[in-house]
Amino acid sequence: MPPPTDLLLPSDPSQRSIARDLYALVRDRPLISPHGHVDPAILAEDRPFPDPAQLIIVPDHYLTRMLLSQGVPPARLGVPSVNGEPVQTDGRAIWRLFTEHWHLFRGTPSRLWLEQTFRDVFGVETALRPATADEVYDAIAARLAEPEFRPRALFERFGIEVLATTESPLDDLHQHAKLAADGWGGPGGRVITTFRPDNVVDMEFDNWAGNVRRLGEVAGTDTGTYAGYLEALRRRREAFIAAGATSSDHGHPTARTLRLDTVEASALYAKGLRGEATAADAEAFRAHMLVEFARMSIDDGLVMQLHPGAVRNHNRWLHATHGRDVGGDIPQATEYLHALTPLLDAYGNDPRLRVVLYTLDEYTFTRELAPLAGGYAALYLGAPWWFLDSPEVLRRFREAVTESAGFYNTAGFVDDTRAFCSIPVRHDVARRIDAGYLARLVAEHRLPLDEAAETIVDLAYHLPRRIFKLER
Amino acid sequence: MPPPTDLLLPSDPSQRSIARDLYALVRDRPLISPHGHVDPAILAEDRPFPDPAQLIIVPDHYLTRMLLSQGVPPARLGVPSVNGEPVQTDGRAIWRLFTEHWHLFRGTPSRLWLEQTFRDVFGVETALRPATADEVYDAIAARLAEPEFRPRALFERFGIEVLATTESPLDDLHQHAKLAADGWGGPGGRVITTFRPDNVVDMEFDNWAGNVRRLGEVAGTDTGTYAGYLEALRRRREAFIAAGATSSDHGHPTARTLRLDTVEASALYAKGLRGEATAADAEAFRAHMLVEFARMSIDDGLVMQLHPGAVRNHNRWLHATHGRDVGGDIPQATEYLHALTPLLDAYGNDPRLRVVLYTLDEYTFTRELAPLAGGYAALYLGAPWWFLDSPEVLRRFREAVTESAGFYNTAGFVDDTRAFCSIPVRHDVARRIDAGYLARLVAEHRLPLDEAAETIVDLAYHLPRRIFKLER
Amino acid sequence: MPPPTDLLLPSDPSQRSIARDLYALVRDRPLISPHGHVDPAILAEDRPFPDPAQLIIVPDHYLTRMLLSQGVPPARLGVPSVNGEPVQTDGRAIWRLFTEHWHLFRGTPSRLWLEQTFRDVFGVETALRPATADEVYDAIAARLAEPEFRPRALFERFGIEVLATTESPLDDLHQHAKLAADGWGGPGGRVITTFRPDNVVDMEFDNWAGNVRRLGEVAGTDTGTYAGYLEALRRRREAFIAAGATSSDHGHPTARTLRLDTVEASALYAKGLRGEATAADAEAFRAHMLVEFARMSIDDGLVMQLHPGAVRNHNRWLHATHGRDVGGDIPQATEYLHALTPLLDAYGNDPRLRVVLYTLDEYTFTRELAPLAGGYAALYLGAPWWFLDSPEVLRRFREAVTESAGFYNTAGFVDDTRAFCSIPVRHDVARRIDAGYLARLVAEHRLPLDEAAETIVDLAYHLPRRIFKLER
Repeated sequence: MPPPTDLLLPSDPSQRSIARDLYALVRDRPLISPHGHVDPAILAEDRPFPDPAQLIIVPDHYLTRMLLSQGVPPARLGVPSVNGEPVQTDGRAIWRLFTEHWHLFRGTPSRLWLEQTFRDVFGVETALRPATADEVYDAIAARLAEPEFRPRALFERFGIEVLATTESPLDDLHQHAKLAADGWGGPGGRVITTFRPDNVVDMEFDNWAGNVRRLGEVAGTDTGTYAGYLEALRRRREAFIAAGATSSDHGHPTARTLRLDTVEASALYAKGLRGEATAADAEAFRAHMLVEFARMSIDDGLVMQLHPGAVRNHNRWLHATHGRDVGGDIPQATEYLHALTPLLDAYGNDPRLRVVLYTLDEYTFTRELAPLAGGYAALYLGAPWWFLDSPEVLRRFREAVTESAGFYNTAGFVDDTRAFCSIPVRHDVARRIDAGYLARLVAEHRLPLDEAAETIVDLAYHLPRRIFKLER
Repeated sequence: MPPPTDLLLPSDPSQRSIARDLYALVRDRPLISPHGHVDPAILAEDRPFPDPAQLIIVPDHYLTRMLLSQGVPPARLGVPSVNGEPVQTDGRAIWRLFTEHWHLFRGTPSRLWLEQTFRDVFGVETALRPATADEVYDAIAARLAEPEFRPRALFERFGIEVLATTESPLDDLHQHAKLAADGWGGPGGRVITTFRPDNVVDMEFDNWAGNVRRLGEVAGTDTGTYAGYLEALRRRREAFIAAGATSSDHGHPTARTLRLDTVEASALYAKGLRGEATAADAEAFRAHMLVEFARMSIDDGLVMQLHPGAVRNHNRWLHATHGRDVGGDIPQATEYLHALTPLLDAYGNDPRLRVVLYTLDEYTFTRELAPLAGGYAALYLGAPWWFLDSPEVLRRFREAVTESAGFYNTAGFVDDTRAFCSIPVRHDVARRIDAGYLARLVAEHRLPLDEAAETIVDLAYHLPRRIFKLER
Repeated sequence: MPPPTDLLLPSDPSQRSIARDLYALVRDRPLISPHGHVDPAILAEDRPFPDPAQLIIVPDHYLTRMLLSQGVPPARLGVPSVNGEPVQTDGRAIWRLFTEHWHLFRGTPSRLWLEQTFRDVFGVETALRPATADEVYDAIAARLAEPEFRPRALFERFGIEVLATTESPLDDLHQHAKLAADGWGGPGGRVITTFRPDNVVDMEFDNWAGNVRRLGEVAGTDTGTYAGYLEALRRRREAFIAAGATSSDHGHPTARTLRLDTVEASALYAKGLRGEATAADAEAFRAHMLVEFARMSIDDGLVMQLHPGAVRNHNRWLHATHGRDVGGDIPQATEYLHALTPLLDAYGNDPRLRVVLYTLDEYTFTRELAPLAGGYAALYLGAPWWFLDSPEVLRRFREAVTESAGFYNTAGFVDDTRAFCSIPVRHDVARRIDAGYLARLVAEHRLPLDEAAETIVDLAYHLPRRIFKLER
C-alpha cells in the first residue's frame, strides 16, 4: 500500500493531527464486510477480471446514472439491454466516453472510489482525464492480466477477513459450496452468504407466484399452503446458515411491520397465489413477514437487516430498456416509528433479536432512528446506505445519531457493493470520516484520546464482527 | 468554580479565541431556568440528597434507556417497577453496573453532563471507569453528606436566579406555599411553578375523567359541564399565578389546534366524560383547548409553551413494567404549519400572546419553525428539546433558524431537567455552543464582535427573562 | 469596487487561503440573473430611484416580516394597505423605525445584503445603528440623486450580463418592447422576460376565470374552450420568446404533476370556468398543466422552472390588510418523487426538456432532489430559494446534493429578488460560499485545485448561461 495521505481528514491543524493518529490505528485492520453484493462466482471461480470498462463502468449504476442525467444513454456505456436495444461492447470506447464526462463526478464518492482504486489497487498514478483515458485503460488492463490481480489474490491483498454475499432463497448456493470445498466458505469462512428473501416475500416482485413455487421445489416442501411456505423458508434459512450465513436482508419499500394471525396470513397468502392481491395486500404481507422473520431469527440466530425506502424502477424507460438495478431507483420518505411498532411490541426488548436498520432518508436520524436504537435492545443502526454512502453523510450520521444512540448501537460500516475492487476504498473512507469525527470530539475536549482510540477500533472492526456474529 | 476550559469551543484557532472571549461574558451570569421538572419538594424541604445512584442514575431515563438498548433491564438499575417486579436497591451495585457500561455514553450529552457535574459540583477529578467506580461513588457520597450540598445551598452556589418547576392543575401547590413562606417562592420568587394541564385536557391520559372530577374539587367548581371545566381551569391558573407561575406548558402528541364553538366543545367534553371519546375526539379536544388556552393567556398573561411530537410510552413492555417517564417515549414527525393555522388565524399577530414552540423534529427548523417565528408576533422558538438537547443540535439549531428568525425570536435555553445537580452544566453547554456559533459569525466577518458580545448576553440572560416574564 | 474581503470565507487558514484564490476567479465575472422579480419598468424608464426607505425597506418583505414578528405592524413601515388602513409615508420615519430594530437581523442574510449594498453600491462606510440612522439615510439619498445611480448606470456598474424579469401572460410586455427599442431587450438582450402563468393556471388564484378571459383577449383566441385556452398559452409563449424569454416559471403549492386526456382536461377546465372547481380539481388542473407545459417546452424550447411548496397568504390578517407578497407566505413539506412521476414518465429522459427544480424544503436534498437530478436527463436543481437563500443553506445545499448529483446537475445561482440594488451582493454571497465549499474539498484532498478552479467558474457563469439558454 502507498503511504497514508490526509484524504478526507479535517483541515483544522489540531483536528487533523489527532485524526491522523486515530486513522493510523485502523488503517491496516482487516476488513469486515457483512453486507454486500459481490457475485460469489468471482471468488468461487477465481477467473481473471474482464476488461477495465466491463469491470469498472458497465456494472456500476452510480456511474451510468450520472451520465444518463446528462443525456448519455446507458446503452452507449455498455449496459446490457433487456429489450433488444443494441449496446456498446467495445471496452475502450466505453472507457473513452466515460472519461469525457469525468468532470460530472467532481465532489462525488464515485470519484474518490475510482481514483483511490486506480492508485491503490492498480498502481496507476496518472490522473484520469480525456487525454489520459487510453493510458489509464491500458495500465489497468495490463494489471488485470497478471495473476496477482485475480480475485482471490486481491481478496488477500485487500485484507478482507470476511465477506458476505447476498443470495435469494431460490439460489442453490453451489458457488458457496465450491468456496467451502476450497476452504474459503462455510460457517466461519472467509466468504459467506446472506439470506435475502424479497423475491419470495414481495407479491409485487416479478413472478412472485412462480418464485414461491420454485422455493417449494428447492426446499422440498409444498408451498401451496402458507404453512408449507413458512416451512420452506425455515429450511432455506438452515441451508444458508450451513453455507455460513449469519444474517438475512430485507429490502422493502417501507419499514411497515404487522402481526397477522395464522388464519389472516394464510388467507392473504392464498389470495396472492391466486393473483388477486392488491397493492395493500402485498404491503400487509411484506409487513407481516418481517415480524415472522423476526420470530425465526430468535430461533435460528440470523441477524435481520432491514433496508426500506427505495422506490424500485422509478425510471420506467430505464427499467423497460435495461431491467432492474441499473440506477432507476429513487428514495422516498420513510417512517420508522409507527411502522416498526408491531415488531417492537413483539420482540423489541429481546436481546436475542438483532435488527440492523438502514435508511435512504437521513431526515429520520435524530427524530426516529437514534431514539429507537437508543431505546430498544433489538435495534442497531446500519451505516448510511446507497445514495448516503458518502463522506458528508457518514459524517452527518455520526453527528446526528451519536448523541442519542451512542457509538455502540451502530453496527459498523458495510460497503454494500458489487464492485469488488472498490471494497478497500469504501471501508477506508468510512475509517477516515470516523477518525475525523472522533478527532473533533477530542479537539473540543468531549472525549479523551484513549477512549477515542478504543472507539475507532471498535467501529472499524469489533462492532461489525460482534453485531453480525462474525467472531470466530 | 474551577478555571474555564475550552470544552465544546471550536478548535479553529481564530474561532476559539473569539469564542473564549464571548463565553467569558456569560460564564458567570445567573441561570434563568424557566422550564424544568425539578421536584419542588427538594427545595421546599431542603433535605440531604440520597446516595449517588439514587440521585444521579435511577431517575435519569437518558441513562437507563441507553443501558436498556444494550440489554440491561432497568430493574437492575433500580428503576421502580409498577408491576411488582423486584428491582435493585443497593446504590453501590447500581453504580457499579452503570459504570461497566460507561463507554456507551461516549459522544453523548449525558457523558458531558455527568463528567462536568462530578468535577464542578462535587469536585471529583477522578475519571469514571470501571476501576474507579467505587472511588467516585464514595467521593460523591461524602459530599452529599455535607451541608454545603443540601439543595438550597447548591441552588445558591449554582447561581440560579429563578427556577420554574412544573405542576398539574390537580397539585395543591403546598410545596410552593412552603417555599413562599420561606422567602423562596411566590410571584417574583426564586422558585416558581408552571401550569401543566395535560392530565385534565388529554382524554387519552390515564383516568382523565377522574382527573377532571378532582379538578372540580380542587378548584371548587362543578366540572360536570364544559363551562364549569373552563372556570376550573381559569381558577387554577389564578392559583398558579399566585404561586409565581408566568407560563403554562402543553405536551401534546401533535401541534394541532382547532377552534370549536361552545356547543361543539361542550358536546365533545360530555362525550369524553361518558367515556365515549374516540382517538379523533381526543385529538380534536386537545387541539381546541390549545386555542382556548391562548385566549386565557391573553387575559391572564401566562406564556404558553407547546411541546408536541412525543409518542408517549412507545416501549410498551417498559411502560407495563416501570410506568411513565422512564425512557420509553420516542419522537414522531411533527407538522407545524397547518396544525397551528387555527391558533394563528385567531391570535398569531397579537403581541399580548406569547407561544414558545419546542420540537423533537429538527427537520422542521428551516422549513416551518423559523419562517413561522419570523413572521408571527406571537411565536417564539424554544431551545432544542429532550433528544435534541445536545451540543450538535444546539449548534444546528442556530445554524438553521437564525437566518430566517434571527436571534430575537428564540426564547433562550431551558434545561428541562429533573436532575437538579445537572442544571449548571446544561446551561453551560448552551452558552459554550452559542459562543462557538457567534465566534464563527465573527470570524467569517458576518457580525462585529461588539454585537456578538451583546447577543450572547441576551441569549443567556435577557431574552429568557423577558420572554418568560421573569424580570423583577 | 472596494478591495475583496474575507467575508463568509471559512476561517480555517488552509481553507481560507484556497477559498480566496477560488473566489478571485469569479469575483468580477459578469452576473447571470435568469430568475428574478425586478420590475422591468425600472430599467425601461430608467428614472431615479425613490428615497432610501421606499427603495430598500418598504418593498422588502424579508425586512417587514421580521419587524412584524416582534410586533411592529407593516403599516408603520410604509407597506401599502389594501383595506384603507393608513400607512406611514415619511421615508425618514420609516428608516428610523427600521434602524431601531436593526439588531433583529443579526445573523440573517438581510443584514449581510444591506450592509454590503450600503458599502459597495452606495459607498457608505458608516455602520448602521440607531444613532447613525439619519447619516446613512442622507448619504444614500444623496447618491440616489446622482445620475450614476440611475438604474441603467447601476446595471452596467453591477456587471449584469443578462437579467430576466417575470411577467404574467396577461402582461402586454410593453416595458420589454421599450427595452428592446432602446437596445436593452429582446432575444439575446440584456433584459428579458420570463413566462409565469400561475394566474391563468391556478383556479384558486384571485379572479382566475376573469384572468382566463383576459388571456383570450390578449392572445386573440377564445379561451371559452380548453383548446382555445391551450392555443392562447402557446401564443403568449411565442410572444414572450419574442421578448427574449428563455424560460417559464411555475409557482405551485405542491410539485404534483398529472396527465389527463383531453376529454378529462376539458371537463375540468369547463368546471373551473363555471366556478364549480373544488380544491382537488384546482390541484389536478395545476398538476395536469405542468405536464402540458413540459410538452410545450419540448416544442418551443422554454426552460421550465418549478417553484413548489409555498403556502401563500398564510398570515390571513396580513393578507387582508396588505395583500399578496408582503411576507405572509410560509413553506410546507414538499414531496417530489411521487409528485413528479407522471411528468418524468412522460418526458424525464428527454434531454430536450429542462426542468429546474427549486425547493423551500431542504429536508428533501439528499432523499429526493439529488437522486432525481442525478438520474433524469430533464432535471436540474435550482439554487436554494427564498427562506433558504442564505449562506448556511447555500453551503448545506452543496454538502447535500453534490455527492449524488454532482455540480453539473445544478443550475447555478439565481437571485430571485425584486430588490435591484441587492443583486450584486446576492451573487457575491453565492460565489463566496461556493469558494468555501470547493476550498474544503481541496483542503481535504478530494478535488485538485485546477478542477476546483474550473468548477467555480462554471457554477458562477457557464452553467446558468448554458442551462437557461443564455449563451449568445
